[in-house]
Amino acid sequence: MANDNDLMEKLVSLCKRRGFIFQSSEIYGGTGSVWDYGPLGVELKNNLKAAWWRAMVHERDDVEGIDAAILMHPRVWEASGHVAGFTDPLVECRNCHRRFRADNPEIQEGQCPVCGTKDAFGEPRMFNLMFKTFMGPVEEAAATVYLRPETAQGIFVNFQNVLTATRQRVPFGIAQIGKAFRNEITPGNFIFRTREFEQMEMQFFVEPGSDEEWFEYWKARRMEWIVSLGVRRERLRFNEHSPEQLAHYAKRAFDIEYEFPFGWNEFEGIHNRTDFDLRRHQEYSGKRLEYIDPADPNHRYIPYVIETSAGADRTVLVILADAYREEEVEGEQRVVLALDPKLAPIKAAVLPLVRKDGMPEIAERIHRRFREAGIPTAYDDSGSIGRRYRRQDEAGTPFAITVDGQTLEDDTVTVRDRDTLRQERIAADRVVEYVRERTV
Amino acid sequence: MANDNDLMEKLVSLCKRRGFIFQSSEIYGGTGSVWDYGPLGVELKNNLKAAWWRAMVHERDDVEGIDAAILMHPRVWEASGHVAGFTDPLVECRNCHRRFRADNPEIQEGQCPVCGTKDAFGEPRMFNLMFKTFMGPVEEAAATVYLRPETAQGIFVNFQNVLTATRQRVPFGIAQIGKAFRNEITPGNFIFRTREFEQMEMQFFVEPGSDEEWFEYWKARRMEWIVSLGVRRERLRFNEHSPEQLAHYAKRAFDIEYEFPFGWNEFEGIHNRTDFDLRRHQEYSGKRLEYIDPADPNHRYIPYVIETSAGADRTVLVILADAYREEEVEGEQRVVLALDPKLAPIKAAVLPLVRKDGMPEIAERIHRRFREAGIPTAYDDSGSIGRRYRRQDEAGTPFAITVDGQTLEDDTVTVRDRDTLRQERIAADRVVEYVRERTV
Repeated sequence: MANDNDLMEKLVSLCKRRGFIFQSSEIYGGTGSVWDYGPLGVELKNNLKAAWWRAMVHERDDVEGIDAAILMHPRVWEASGHVAGFTDPLVECRNCHRRFRADNPEIQEGQCPVCGTKDAFGEPRMFNLMFKTFMGPVEEAAATVYLRPETAQGIFVNFQNVLTATRQRVPFGIAQIGKAFRNEITPGNFIFRTREFEQMEMQFFVEPGSDEEWFEYWKARRMEWIVSLGVRRERLRFNEHSPEQLAHYAKRAFDIEYEFPFGWNEFEGIHNRTDFDLRRHQEYSGKRLEYIDPADPNHRYIPYVIETSAGADRTVLVILADAYREEEVEGEQRVVLALDPKLAPIKAAVLPLVRKDGMPEIAERIHRRFREAGIPTAYDDSGSIGRRYRRQDEAGTPFAITVDGQTLEDDTVTVRDRDTLRQERIAADRVVEYVRERTV
Repeated sequence: MANDNDLMEKLVSLCKRRGFIFQSSEIYGGTGSVWDYGPLGVELKNNLKAAWWRAMVHERDDVEGIDAAILMHPRVWEASGHVAGFTDPLVECRNCHRRFRADNPEIQEGQCPVCGTKDAFGEPRMFNLMFKTFMGPVEEAAATVYLRPETAQGIFVNFQNVLTATRQRVPFGIAQIGKAFRNEITPGNFIFRTREFEQMEMQFFVEPGSDEEWFEYWKARRMEWIVSLGVRRERLRFNEHSPEQLAHYAKRAFDIEYEFPFGWNEFEGIHNRTDFDLRRHQEYSGKRLEYIDPADPNHRYIPYVIETSAGADRTVLVILADAYREEEVEGEQRVVLALDPKLAPIKAAVLPLVRKDGMPEIAERIHRRFREAGIPTAYDDSGSIGRRYRRQDEAGTPFAITVDGQTLEDDTVTVRDRDTLRQERIAADRVVEYVRERTV
């Protein structure tokens, strides 16, 4: 891709200008790799999460949702292997005491890139990526808890509770959307790698032996889903983990990658986690986590798990990067976010052509009808109509509804389509339904 | 109220049995005062948050949403006063080193209630209720960050960014739903006081002098809202903070209280925070946080803030406690959650009267149509029809759709209303619309 750094800069700038994404605590100089969603960003992200929840939970009989807490019992992370193994090798400068990843190419010469000391580093030490904190009023080891580094474990420890309450039978899944935290040494690329992030995860419990078939099933489904949101297929690919890349719990793993402006990178993974997690939690908790077939009590086993794990923020970035277009239309340059109407933060803009002749009053009335229906719309009467279209193009608003001279005569309005630029005249009292049918 | 402890126990037990709320990390003995939402709980809570967002953001022109991160710049909490002032006085036992709130009636005699040591306590010391952690790979003071103890500050530090991106004019508000964390010394009462919790907050920025009028406006609106969700008015009341109770930033404050089984307690507050927060952030960040009237650039001021701050988990508890009923119907005892249909986790249950004569096939077909429409429904064919009704009553499901002998003849089904118990026969191909109109 041409001008890739340039494109990221433009995207970050548009995100701030239009209110999609702001740097966290910006008035204090920002927080390392943490971002806040602004008025348009929170709508986009909520719409994305709702689309995922609908596809993964509401449209299916065999997946239940949960929302487990961020703070969990510390033994969970011993069982999962995170306390012992969720580490990066770091070296520390003997002069300024700053730490760096041992595989950082900047320090290959042994010189500290910050203070310039030569032969600055000793042997690498392992650094755990979990954020730790203390629960209760005593700061001691017994009270140390971690901010979860993945949402998955909240699902595993609730496996029996969900099974009992819902009377589901294997195969079935548990889905969850929630925050996770990793003390990344080298965060970056805007909202791609951040220390606080949100996951959309689903763990599907299957009988051992049927796991490979279910793995293929979910791999196909998840690719279909992202394509169904309008992301261009040629910018998506699978990347299979080699045996050396596989996590300790995984039998097989595929990433779904997108061609970001900074290169191909994963935003979702499909993993065959085997029975690793449930078996470990059974061992560490002393509680039986077997599944007993209701039709045959002698048929019992610890289920295998097929996991689909998507980064919500990364998927937002996929959607934004893929939707970003620079085009020449109507004789001028425009930037447009060609967002799927289901995901667009604002569904329609209501624009009086001029601020007189009663047009604002009619436009305000239409706008109010959208609000009462709970459909997010914008009202804009400032600047030329062309300039107002451009503003809505940058926000990704699928429809612009203009109240003009003819509206005063026959009570129709024009509806402009963001992508085709085609204008259609329809009755003013039909616009709410027209927009709802095409955007919700 | 009679049998109040009893009622809480029954509610906690129903919440576990039906999958509303589980104890966090239960297989490890639980985590101090942290709870997980199960399959029905996550739907109830999501529906509640969606109703709040619709009323506060989507239906209004003058409120914008955001979603700020949990981890913020540490200076934020110096400016807000939390580093210096968000503390409880604690005493420590000189023998076992356990700490207790100095106002704990159990320790008035000076004896440690845990190890029994006499004259165990010295002078109280102040303990900060913020959870702290370390960002980046170095554990030192410079890298200390806090889990936010309230979402409000994420709104204040984004005030200028939101203003610029949206071109709103004062008066306008910023709304947010998100997690906050407080290291409470004495958590308890189920999901009422927990260390990890979710807030639904809105900060409304007004010109000084108009603040009292807006305070009254929002106080009335927020009470209307909770009543609109079906909560009984006689169990709701306002409680004004006395001058001694007012927080350091507040000019006036009212709680909205509910009569829980454990007594009257607040679940939402309306606060006049004056210009305290913006003024402090201006001082600490060195950034101008004034509002400049676009119509008159000489008219500039730091806005006052009227805040509406609701606990999402506490409001879930209000909804559950208020909906819980024990009744005698159809000659037997039933427990029913009389939830507002908009909030109910499952909108309808589809029940074949018997497991033969083609009834399951028809019921499954109806069930599938609900799923395709994204409407959460249950399919249940096990046990007597009365028992299946009881199960759905406990889940708060507003409608039960039964496929029976007559369905085979004329393609109609019965729809049973959870509250009135009235049954209506309607055409099978109309049930999805029937339920959607009454529940979404």
